[in-house]
Amino acid sequence: MTEPAFIAIDWGASQLKAFLCQPDGVQPKVLASASGPGVAAARGQFRVTLLEAVGDWLRQDPALVVYMAGHITSSLGWYQTRYLNTPCLPQALLPELVQGQCPDMALWLSTGLRCALPEGGHDVMRGEEVQLLGLLQLAPELRFGRRLVCLPGTHTKWVWLEDGQIRHFRTSMTGELYALLTQHSVLLQQAENSGDFCTESFIRGCQQMRGTAGLHWLHQLFTVRTEQLFSGLTPQQASAYLSGILVGADVQGWQVNEPCASEDCDVVLAGNSQLNFCYREALQLAGFKVRTFDITDATLAGFGWLAREQRCAGIVAAQVVSDGVCQLG
Amino acid sequence: MTEPAFIAIDWGASQLKAFLCQPDGVQPKVLASASGPGVAAARGQFRVTLLEAVGDWLRQDPALVVYMAGHITSSLGWYQTRYLNTPCLPQALLPELVQGQCPDMALWLSTGLRCALPEGGHDVMRGEEVQLLGLLQLAPELRFGRRLVCLPGTHTKWVWLEDGQIRHFRTSMTGELYALLTQHSVLLQQAENSGDFCTESFIRGCQQMRGTAGLHWLHQLFTVRTEQLFSGLTPQQASAYLSGILVGADVQGWQVNEPCASEDCDVVLAGNSQLNFCYREALQLAGFKVRTFDITDATLAGFGWLAREQRCAGIVAAQVVSDGVCQLG
Repeated sequence: MTEPAFIAIDWGASQLKAFLCQPDGVQPKVLASASGPGVAAARGQFRVTLLEAVGDWLRQDPALVVYMAGHITSSLGWYQTRYLNTPCLPQALLPELVQGQCPDMALWLSTGLRCALPEGGHDVMRGEEVQLLGLLQLAPELRFGRRLVCLPGTHTKWVWLEDGQIRHFRTSMTGELYALLTQHSVLLQQAENSGDFCTESFIRGCQQMRGTAGLHWLHQLFTVRTEQLFSGLTPQQASAYLSGILVGADVQGWQVNEPCASEDCDVVLAGNSQLNFCYREALQLAGFKVRTFDITDATLAGFGWLAREQRCAGIVAAQVVSDGVCQLG
Repeated sequence: MTEPAFIAIDWGASQLKAFLCQPDGVQPKVLASASGPGVAAARGQFRVTLLEAVGDWLRQDPALVVYMAGHITSSLGWYQTRYLNTPCLPQALLPELVQGQCPDMALWLSTGLRCALPEGGHDVMRGEEVQLLGLLQLAPELRFGRRLVCLPGTHTKWVWLEDGQIRHFRTSMTGELYALLTQHSVLLQQAENSGDFCTESFIRGCQQMRGTAGLHWLHQLFTVRTEQLFSGLTPQQASAYLSGILVGADVQGWQVNEPCASEDCDVVLAGNSQLNFCYREALQLAGFKVRTFDITDATLAGFGWLAREQRCAGIVAAQVVSDGVCQLG
């Protein structure tokens, strides 16, 4: 008998991604996919937004179980789930799944992760924990030894794994800052989403940030404008150059602040194809070897594992989040 | 016989500030003032926006001469004027004044300044050159020796003066980034413009950026969120903390990248009262002595000098910018 299909939802700050999945080994088969606005744009209309993305699938099969992770479970989201503290195995997410009290569907939510940073303070993730779980399914050899994982995105995560445990991680604002600066700043005046990506400009941006020059990043950012004024950079080249400044700064900053990061470590990189390309270039420039994975593969493998294991274990929700203890859209 | 009144306009990226001035020694007396949207918000409606600010004054006295400087004269503005190269004396702005072909008023525009940076590349200013001119009128002793000037704002300028000449300068995106992050980012969810400024949080932000920790600024920015989640920072405290991160990074970055900046130099700081407070705190934390000036005083002293000297010299425009060679709103 085939395992039942399920819905996997990765709802981040900037995008909702929904997948109708058919279990198929480690990597579920995607029968259909949909997207929608991220948490920031959907605020106040979470339920309607979700139903717009997955309503058709549920009408055809009301028994579909829905798994959801990401910023949507944060204090700024819809159903707020708690944080699991690191160090922890990503498999620990399974007994921590929380049922959302939702009239439209059987909805299961991932908890977030929280880590105490070596230098004091904390960091958090929501959504990436499922991706890390999936990565360890896709590449079981990553469950052994110390591993550096970079998950680039709106909020890039730099993660240390040790024998399959998530030890600690740091968030950087790379993707969000790129979006803010391309959409709202005087640095770039024209749309940049047409034509080919200018790798040469990207690499120039990375190089601009090497060494202590990177400490005056508030000034380096302004060179995106002056390079257009005086060096003939087109807006499209300027956006690649800005991307290089940000990704180069992220790689250098992480490398300097992370005493464990040395050049004999490979970095496991899991993003979309464009982000994988950019971070691989910047990491290689900084002397790292890089191994890449597609982030959607990792996400689906993570949700696939949760769906299968939950069904096998016959888990009943230990916690239910409802409109009594959380915001409902 | 009294000197005729004039209008001084500082039209930057984020705000238009207009002053009806009565000459009165170095520092003109302000008879009236008005404000309006900055260049970014006024694009396509420059003429209407300007007339909304100063139309009443011109109806009462059509002979008023209007002096204008700032981002409005840039490639993103209304009348585009050229750049004067550094090193130059700010007094060199006088013969470089350009007449705007405007049917509504006698309009004179300042040129911008451009400098070649020691490390390669260029930097630019538009508007601050008039403020520097004014500073040297307000404090003639600054015309001698090497002087460090910081003009904090949307685009903070760090300027080296040598015997009254502007040698070179660097722009940093401090104010613009603060505005982008408080208005559009997930870091801060609530308005922060109520109540008292939390100096303690500001200083914590500055300290967070000292040393190489500042190199991973993309991560440090994210602590604005985690400090709210786990250290009880209120949104208002968090905005002061973010301000500290940015101003602290600006001061440290400038200090590291500017080989001439040593702690036996005083820094001349000219901003509004809030920015003067913040930058003074951060500069003192970094070991600098600071002398402050009010930026409006400097702006008006600069325009006042130009108006008086132009009238005395009976200068006729060498250049006229019109709709043939520039954009007209």
